[in-house]
Amino acid sequence: MNRLFHVPLSPFCRKVRLSLAEKKIEVELVEEKYWEQDPEFMRRNPAGKVPVLKMKGRMLAESAPICELIEELHPDPPLFPRKPEDRYEVRRLVSWFDDKFHNEVTSKLLYERVNKKITKQGYPDSKNVKEGAKAIKYHLDYMSWLLDQRRWLAGNVMTLADFAAAAHLSSLDYISDVDWDRSENVRDWYAKIKSRPAFRSLLADQVSGFPPPAHYADLDF
Amino acid sequence: MNRLFHVPLSPFCRKVRLSLAEKKIEVELVEEKYWEQDPEFMRRNPAGKVPVLKMKGRMLAESAPICELIEELHPDPPLFPRKPEDRYEVRRLVSWFDDKFHNEVTSKLLYERVNKKITKQGYPDSKNVKEGAKAIKYHLDYMSWLLDQRRWLAGNVMTLADFAAAAHLSSLDYISDVDWDRSENVRDWYAKIKSRPAFRSLLADQVSGFPPPAHYADLDF
Ligand SMILES: N[C@@H](CCC(=O)N[C@@H](CS)C(=O)NCC(=O)O)C(=O)O
Ligand SMILES: N[C@@H](CCC(=O)N[C@@H](CS)C(=O)NCC(=O)O)C(=O)O
Repeated sequence: MNRLFHVPLSPFCRKVRLSLAEKKIEVELVEEKYWEQDPEFMRRNPAGKVPVLKMKGRMLAESAPICELIEELHPDPPLFPRKPEDRYEVRRLVSWFDDKFHNEVTSKLLYERVNKKITKQGYPDSKNVKEGAKAIKYHLDYMSWLLDQRRWLAGNVMTLADFAAAAHLSSLDYISDVDWDRSENVRDWYAKIKSRPAFRSLLADQVSGFPPPAHYADLDF
Repeated sequence: MNRLFHVPLSPFCRKVRLSLAEKKIEVELVEEKYWEQDPEFMRRNPAGKVPVLKMKGRMLAESAPICELIEELHPDPPLFPRKPEDRYEVRRLVSWFDDKFHNEVTSKLLYERVNKKITKQGYPDSKNVKEGAKAIKYHLDYMSWLLDQRRWLAGNVMTLADFAAAAHLSSLDYISDVDWDRSENVRDWYAKIKSRPAFRSLLADQVSGFPPPAHYADLDF
């Protein structure tokens, strides 16, 4: 059986969970307190990060490379288009969310409000929270601009770029940090992606000490 | 003509320069002071980061997606192996260097010592510099451990993983922050990669105010 060592609200783990679920690859989820740096875990991934996927006896780390491997081994249903230029656009947006959005938004809101408490690293830094709350607006507007031109973020088919974005936004939605009223097309996009069977496991997540708001799992939010 | 908007010591730009040069794709280098956030530049890449590659009239951003596109359009000579599992390992290591090594080492040494001065953001933070100097040892040891088992970082052929690593190390070597005496196999690996024609342009770089040490461009360092 495949195993994913993860934490529920990690956007990197969520992207892998969505890819696996979309391709109907079964996986057992194992919560990994990566901040405790358990030696057993460090052997699994010397980078000391989640996600780590155990698949066919191999330990795999780094979410985007894992998703590319899953795609190469299980091409159906595809999460990448065929044309090199279209594949580039998917990868660019995955990097956009996992690098830029992560640094400017996720790490300033989710990590301040939730991870710091869970890992006992003190209180949220209000300067960071303010910056994150400001930056997410710019990112939602960028998404809205893309969705004015395309049905999905990277083009006219759903791809890993949508999962990368939804992974970050769903984790932030768990702490009510996404203003879905800001643009209708972003809300419509999220409604479409949220109603996919692949999303169900994410919507059932519960983090102790942080109960999700009612709208989090509501398909009609 | 292709154009690469870059800064000389950016490891992300260097990885793209190495890929282009290895595949003998000509490119005009244009220095881009990204920190000035020139509106023209922000139009080219709304993420406001270098590298940005203008290729066939398209503006491309994000170094790893750019390198994947170059590979798909110009597969010879290959910088990725054929087998999905081997390709995964290349991508994992590219992420290792561009995420973990970048955060733990490059940003703490190069950005503190060079970028802060160039972008007029004050003086190096000695705590960061100390942490970076400590962390690079661990990373060199990890590379050495890999190279005990393989001829190149991701396997027995040279790949983008070697370019990603060499991009970071060469930028740090420009400011004498790499201890090449630490492990013989890492030094031998760097000597091999440094002597490739693709590396020449990097070795000719000059950053004003920061003359490179004599060993930087020396193939017999
Ligand atoms: N580049 C990695 C990033 C993964 C990552 O940063 N995961 C966080 C949890 S959301 C983590 O494990 N952080 C621990 C650390 O950085 O030491 C990936 O895409 O998998
Ligand atoms: N994920 C990007 C990272 C590029 C990057 O961080 N470039 C730096 C220069 S070394 C930059 O432009 N920083 C400006 C910024 O982050 O605003 C890539 O791989 O291209």
